[in-house]
Amino acid sequence: MAVPLTILTDPRRIEARRELAIPAGTTILVAAHAAGVDITATCGGRGRCTSCRVKFVAGVVPPPTIGDEVQLGDALVREGYRLSCQCAPTEAVTVQVAPPLEETSFQILGAGTGVVGRVTVVGGVDKQLVKVALPREEHHQTSDVEQLAAAVGMAAADVPAGVLAALPQALREDPAGVTVTTFAGRILAVERGDTTSMRFGLAIDVGTTSVVTTLLELTSGEQLASVSSLNPQAVFGGDLMSRIAFAQFNPGNLRKLHTRILGLLNQHIAEVCRTSGVLPKWIYKVVVVGNTCMHHVLLGIDPSYVGLAPYAPVMRHALTLSARELFLKIAPEARVCLLPLVAGFVGADAVAVALATRIYEGDVLRVAVDIGTNGEVLLGSAARLWACSAPAGPAFEGGQIRHGMRGALGAIDRVTVDEDLSVHTIGETDALGICGSGLLDLVAGLLEAGVIDWTGLIQVEQRDALPPRLRDRVLMRGEERVVLVLRAGEAGAPREIVLTQDDVRQLQLAKGAIASGIAMLRHVAGVSVEGVGELMLAGGFGNYLSIDSAVRIGLVPDLGSGRIRYVGNAASLGAQLCLLSEPERARADQIARRIEHVSLAAHPDFEQIFVDCMNFPRP
Amino acid sequence: MAVPLTILTDPRRIEARRELAIPAGTTILVAAHAAGVDITATCGGRGRCTSCRVKFVAGVVPPPTIGDEVQLGDALVREGYRLSCQCAPTEAVTVQVAPPLEETSFQILGAGTGVVGRVTVVGGVDKQLVKVALPREEHHQTSDVEQLAAAVGMAAADVPAGVLAALPQALREDPAGVTVTTFAGRILAVERGDTTSMRFGLAIDVGTTSVVTTLLELTSGEQLASVSSLNPQAVFGGDLMSRIAFAQFNPGNLRKLHTRILGLLNQHIAEVCRTSGVLPKWIYKVVVVGNTCMHHVLLGIDPSYVGLAPYAPVMRHALTLSARELFLKIAPEARVCLLPLVAGFVGADAVAVALATRIYEGDVLRVAVDIGTNGEVLLGSAARLWACSAPAGPAFEGGQIRHGMRGALGAIDRVTVDEDLSVHTIGETDALGICGSGLLDLVAGLLEAGVIDWTGLIQVEQRDALPPRLRDRVLMRGEERVVLVLRAGEAGAPREIVLTQDDVRQLQLAKGAIASGIAMLRHVAGVSVEGVGELMLAGGFGNYLSIDSAVRIGLVPDLGSGRIRYVGNAASLGAQLCLLSEPERARADQIARRIEHVSLAAHPDFEQIFVDCMNFPRP
Repeated sequence: MAVPLTILTDPRRIEARRELAIPAGTTILVAAHAAGVDITATCGGRGRCTSCRVKFVAGVVPPPTIGDEVQLGDALVREGYRLSCQCAPTEAVTVQVAPPLEETSFQILGAGTGVVGRVTVVGGVDKQLVKVALPREEHHQTSDVEQLAAAVGMAAADVPAGVLAALPQALREDPAGVTVTTFAGRILAVERGDTTSMRFGLAIDVGTTSVVTTLLELTSGEQLASVSSLNPQAVFGGDLMSRIAFAQFNPGNLRKLHTRILGLLNQHIAEVCRTSGVLPKWIYKVVVVGNTCMHHVLLGIDPSYVGLAPYAPVMRHALTLSARELFLKIAPEARVCLLPLVAGFVGADAVAVALATRIYEGDVLRVAVDIGTNGEVLLGSAARLWACSAPAGPAFEGGQIRHGMRGALGAIDRVTVDEDLSVHTIGETDALGICGSGLLDLVAGLLEAGVIDWTGLIQVEQRDALPPRLRDRVLMRGEERVVLVLRAGEAGAPREIVLTQDDVRQLQLAKGAIASGIAMLRHVAGVSVEGVGELMLAGGFGNYLSIDSAVRIGLVPDLGSGRIRYVGNAASLGAQLCLLSEPERARADQIARRIEHVSLAAHPDFEQIFVDCMNFPRP
Repeated sequence: MAVPLTILTDPRRIEARRELAIPAGTTILVAAHAAGVDITATCGGRGRCTSCRVKFVAGVVPPPTIGDEVQLGDALVREGYRLSCQCAPTEAVTVQVAPPLEETSFQILGAGTGVVGRVTVVGGVDKQLVKVALPREEHHQTSDVEQLAAAVGMAAADVPAGVLAALPQALREDPAGVTVTTFAGRILAVERGDTTSMRFGLAIDVGTTSVVTTLLELTSGEQLASVSSLNPQAVFGGDLMSRIAFAQFNPGNLRKLHTRILGLLNQHIAEVCRTSGVLPKWIYKVVVVGNTCMHHVLLGIDPSYVGLAPYAPVMRHALTLSARELFLKIAPEARVCLLPLVAGFVGADAVAVALATRIYEGDVLRVAVDIGTNGEVLLGSAARLWACSAPAGPAFEGGQIRHGMRGALGAIDRVTVDEDLSVHTIGETDALGICGSGLLDLVAGLLEAGVIDWTGLIQVEQRDALPPRLRDRVLMRGEERVVLVLRAGEAGAPREIVLTQDDVRQLQLAKGAIASGIAMLRHVAGVSVEGVGELMLAGGFGNYLSIDSAVRIGLVPDLGSGRIRYVGNAASLGAQLCLLSEPERARADQIARRIEHVSLAAHPDFEQIFVDCMNFPRP
């Protein structure tokens, strides 16, 4: 049986692609070479180097081999990189020939079905080694900072006070000179000796439920480390509204939220620095994205009125602070750039998604859905761009689900339902719970099998029509309808894992919020389902989302084959883009001003659309 | 016997003056009215109001009466204000008819022999009450800060992050609106309701030995409170060089100096606020002057190399920080303006003295001497301006003198020597020690009486030639030559107060430093003593310095009558000028760039000049 394989050979040009049909069991490298597509294989295709690596950009990413893990490391594997010599696809996939790691450009998600663009790395952080001529005569009329400023061609007043304290020693202790770090005409640091090659930055995505911090090298754009954790504010409220209610008119509680997120960010910084060997003082730029409430709380700004109609944010403009002002333990004068916001519930994360998906360009109307506890939906093209909030709640991140969990080791991330349930776990280890992508597969499969009907009810009464092994998993526990996903011991599960009727209802609420957001934006823009050229699903699921399952449960409309794709954590990617490219950061400002905010709750048609979207599509 | 009285009737015009000769015992008010000079006397000259107050600008200021103290208060009395209805001069004085307190201009020291100039108050801190239109519809595309910025005609990005935290509540809690405080196009505070009349600032003079903090109302320029204390860093070294040695290459010790001065400034702030009833959050502007080392330490900048040849300062440019960055407990975004420096030992205090004395304007060459532990001498006119450091040590502030003390209650501030010693104390209370002005009087009188010879030796061997009561005060105590200034019980002294041979030597070192600084600048500028049109003595002595005594001990050259005057704490006055007038603050920058620094120690002729200046002038 032939398997369709698309190879994007030049990420700069969308048209540079080869469509192949390869025999099952053939590795991508062998198939590519047979078709005349150049993929470098330095070790001869033995899995001993990284030169033949490709990145999966559409289709199911195969589980990593030992070769992938040893050669590419965790971070690249998680990003979807695989060694093409080790990987034989079994279903349709699109891969991109990977950019050389030393190249100073950075891959972005683009229009069409694959990755198309790269941006040149111009992060704005510059370092130069200078020798500063200090006065030798007593009759001088100068100072250390004037001599330094003259050496780098700036004014003394451009040197921030925080840099002055250690200046005299730095200028005198190393005959090689001092390394001066600048950003936007401002001196960020003066270090003794030559540290010009040490230039790093952080992209931080502060979500309601998850926080992701990524460390990048600012010359090559290479990702050195990434860490993701639960937002520790979650103990004070799972969704935004309860988080705001906790802080509302209560400065003490606001302070609790504020210190928790700052504490976590400093833990993340310590962790990415430890795993990469980078010193915190070499981090000079940070880009932060997050929804409006998270953004306000991070700055210690009272979000009370964000939670009260008409939901006015306190500020929306892009803000740049020093790390010192935010108490982040990196270079004290490092610039922390917060991307702009759009409205009370459409934040910088939505702007980052728009940036990364390039939804703002081209003639084709497209939809980008950022699925998260406080999700957003974008619809538009180069002409206009609309956005609304889609408060899905934490279900897709495993929250408020009986045995839900985030996409960590042991999470069930794939489920198939036929004669029985079968599961796959992240890391192929003992099953501990269900993450977002697994939950979607599970419910989609149960719908298809008739275990759940279109209203969402678990069909305990009709279980006798099911295949025997599946039937035994559908039962009443007292008053509660449950599907027994795993009995204790099955797939190594230390305890049984169930899907309850309540879990299904939570998922219905969550997917209803997203689906009705898409429907409402189409409604406002006057666009039919057929008028949507492409739909991009973004968000930090446990693993790559099954598009089929998303369509089956009605999370997204059925646009037909190839017009829906999963684009990963686009908010974090947008932050990385702004970290590596100042023109992209400037573009974020333009996008934020262009986005037209649609307030769903205030729209007279919303309630009926939401109720309709709560149900599952009938088969 | 007629007493010469000069009345300056219009501080804006130097020529507006009346020269009178009044009968001894006549009050200034009566004499002025008799001569047709208008002085308002609302209470009819009964000492019950402040309308007839005058300010003494030359000659000895008479001790305050109870009327002065009750009506004018401590601060004005210390500044030399007296009620003209209560005051009958006994020797030649010049007084200025006081400006109405509500007038928005501010008195400065000027050329000639009196006070001549006033500056219009344009401190740069503006407050306006605005009503901000907040969004009422959910379909808005705005934010609190955008609405605020629109209301005051600024951009949202001009609002500092520190102001945002409390913005949402402030905007919604008072129907009167919010008061927005701005400075140089920057929003400093947003307060609910109308606080437009609350606008205050601080002028801070950080000396090596003394720190003076003055609270001014920014509309009228009125001084509300002033506090002066010992610099608590003094325990780590009395003069600058020992202070620098303590911190040199020792970050822990630098931190001690840094926290001590910050702690004192916050104590001063608490004190001036308590005595005046002003809330710290209403203080929006601070101007700080100090020598280079004090300036660096206040900013936490390593001063190690300021103490090592070629004595390079780390920075010299004017710097403006937020109070938050300096940890000052006033409005967090208040602007703290540090005036520019000139060299390692010619600091912002010298620039402030130049500004307040107007030495930089006019054709006449003038000298300004700022006497302090790290004194400075300035010489110049509109054409050129030279400055050098004159490290007098703390003797003039009572330091390193056996029974020396600062000019506080109980300090001996005047001494006359004839048949015996007689003393006057500040507050006319029991004598506790000798302050700077008393020390000068004492040594000048002892020189004149032959108790001390021109080399500085106390003439114990020749004591028999002295009047009997004086003779009994000149004696050997073991190996030590002393003058018994007060025996225990005399003038209420709880213990005896002596002047030791070492004290005389300390004074010789101190006055030698100043005198040789003046001589060296004349030497560099090629100006004879006769070429100096005026000499202004500045500094925080215990009380108004006797010019005669200063000339007698050779602290300053004998320019002849009326060409030397004491101008008070000109450094603090310069800071106050910059607080009340942004054009004056801009002028400080120009002055700092104009001043030509003369390094004494590097000059080949300095040593001989210094040795000559150590001796007292022969009678």
